[in-house]
Amino acid sequence: MRTFNIIPPDEALRPALQNKIDNLSKPRGSLGRLEELALRIGLVQQTLSPVLRSPENILFAADHGIVSEGISPTPKEVTWQQTLHFASGSGTGIGFLCRQHGFRLRVVDAGVDYDFPAGCGVIDRKIGRGTASYLSGAAMSSDELDRCIEAGVGIVDDAFSDGCNVVSFGEMGATNTSSSALWMHYLTGVPLAECIGAGSGLDGEGMRHKYEVLSRACENYTGSADVREVMARFGGFEMAMAVGGMLRAAERGMVILVDGFIMTACMLAAAKLHPAVLHYAIFAHEGDERGHRLLLQALGVRPILSLGLRLGEGSGAVCAYPIVDAAVRMINEMESFAEASVTKYF
Amino acid sequence: MRTFNIIPPDEALRPALQNKIDNLSKPRGSLGRLEELALRIGLVQQTLSPVLRSPENILFAADHGIVSEGISPTPKEVTWQQTLHFASGSGTGIGFLCRQHGFRLRVVDAGVDYDFPAGCGVIDRKIGRGTASYLSGAAMSSDELDRCIEAGVGIVDDAFSDGCNVVSFGEMGATNTSSSALWMHYLTGVPLAECIGAGSGLDGEGMRHKYEVLSRACENYTGSADVREVMARFGGFEMAMAVGGMLRAAERGMVILVDGFIMTACMLAAAKLHPAVLHYAIFAHEGDERGHRLLLQALGVRPILSLGLRLGEGSGAVCAYPIVDAAVRMINEMESFAEASVTKYF
Repeated sequence: MRTFNIIPPDEALRPALQNKIDNLSKPRGSLGRLEELALRIGLVQQTLSPVLRSPENILFAADHGIVSEGISPTPKEVTWQQTLHFASGSGTGIGFLCRQHGFRLRVVDAGVDYDFPAGCGVIDRKIGRGTASYLSGAAMSSDELDRCIEAGVGIVDDAFSDGCNVVSFGEMGATNTSSSALWMHYLTGVPLAECIGAGSGLDGEGMRHKYEVLSRACENYTGSADVREVMARFGGFEMAMAVGGMLRAAERGMVILVDGFIMTACMLAAAKLHPAVLHYAIFAHEGDERGHRLLLQALGVRPILSLGLRLGEGSGAVCAYPIVDAAVRMINEMESFAEASVTKYF
Repeated sequence: MRTFNIIPPDEALRPALQNKIDNLSKPRGSLGRLEELALRIGLVQQTLSPVLRSPENILFAADHGIVSEGISPTPKEVTWQQTLHFASGSGTGIGFLCRQHGFRLRVVDAGVDYDFPAGCGVIDRKIGRGTASYLSGAAMSSDELDRCIEAGVGIVDDAFSDGCNVVSFGEMGATNTSSSALWMHYLTGVPLAECIGAGSGLDGEGMRHKYEVLSRACENYTGSADVREVMARFGGFEMAMAVGGMLRAAERGMVILVDGFIMTACMLAAAKLHPAVLHYAIFAHEGDERGHRLLLQALGVRPILSLGLRLGEGSGAVCAYPIVDAAVRMINEMESFAEASVTKYF
């Protein structure tokens, strides 16, 4: 596997950043989390005047063999239909949010079981026509996992070359909350039952069936909790590609906006591979999926928003962008007490 | 006092709005609070295609006689200094947020103890040079209260004439978290000690002194919990003006974004006068001030953001605007399952 050289930001700049923030014409600390975010982004970019440029949402789509077990209310064909719909730039959830906040949307076929027509706007990085079912075998091979990570690296390199220094990742793939629950279970030790949620909308009976299928998948798994082994066993291609993208983004010094449950599971895996990736991660949204809160707790992080979203696609991350942008504007555009001719009272 | 004719939105449109939202190409309910907000704004505007136009943040500033009791760490001159700073459009907290989100900022002198120079951009609606101390008498007369409400009405009329249909209110005025705590105490019955917080940054000793002074003010008050009487007794001018503005905005059918503790206290008073105003109110931010959470509970509402802001100025409301805007874009820009050629799976 490729090695990543992710360097934790140099902490030497912290006092100067904190001092700049404390001297802005406001009671100290009164801009709350905006102040925290400005400090973190200043550290990531190693400057007192950070800049966010050309934000992108990179959306990876893929199918999962486990879908045949009936653990998602979303029919499999919705994966390709929505992927095509995203790429047409029109009326999807992530589409209007990207337009609103000036994000470029890159839509990547990581492994959808469909032949997209040429010129449809979907970027072809297809590893296969969906993963194998992980009920009693591996979703993907170790070689496929490496190819996913390489593809994620390449896509982030493209974004970086186009001037992007702040990136979110999104996904489309029926049953990928199940893969996320399994990654979470093996990589954090939280009991499986607490990692499982309603996904795109299961009822109580559906949840029981999902738990039953995933329990069997665990019983049949005799491997270890090694992160690469868990990723390959339970898939999916789109998630492994996102992990590669996150690691490369951190290596490039980019700010990473982390979306909901699935992307948080990917960040967890990325952090198991390279803990320093977390310095570059801003957790954007606490979603409705049951395991998400526990996963965020396991990571010791508190997201910016809590809007009850459970759409995926990167929607929570893009929604949170104006808050992150506000933090950067604060540190650049607010005057100090001295500049403002206001009595410094803190 | 002026009467307001605030009409609750006609609920007849609710099923059609809900149906439109449910048919957008996403799992039902998966856009969480965006869906709730779209429904509410559709009802306020009585349309399936709501539009937000020319957002404004109206910032009222005034001084308070009680400041001489030393209950705020903010020196009194900061009120006029910051008011001037807001109007110059440069580097204030609310300034960069308004620029970020395309808000017009109207800065109104409701009663600052300072003569602003002509042409400085501060709108003159001065009721007096600060309120009287409410330690043992009324902050303002009943006539002054009426003039505040009229002035708030007039400013909102100006915004409305300029095309605005979504408005937030902000404030500047050293000690106005104290007036807010007193309004809250008398209008909700929550014990005074639970209504009092750190304001712009009191320490434990400062908090004890604030409580002691406000307790004496309550002991000396022999009036009733009538909303007008409480407003006049404890002031301030900027808060009473905001109440007038909120009532007029609701009468005009405008969407009202409610900022932090002080503006929530104003919305509470407005609702005591005209309960229907709440149909037009979107609570934007749960601030750090201790009483705010209890006040929001008393009103039975849950704000959009919780970012630990305690700046005032309307900052929390303006920060939340992109979420409100996203809700409106969702209902207008997302395609239905049929339009998108995606299998409807919910």
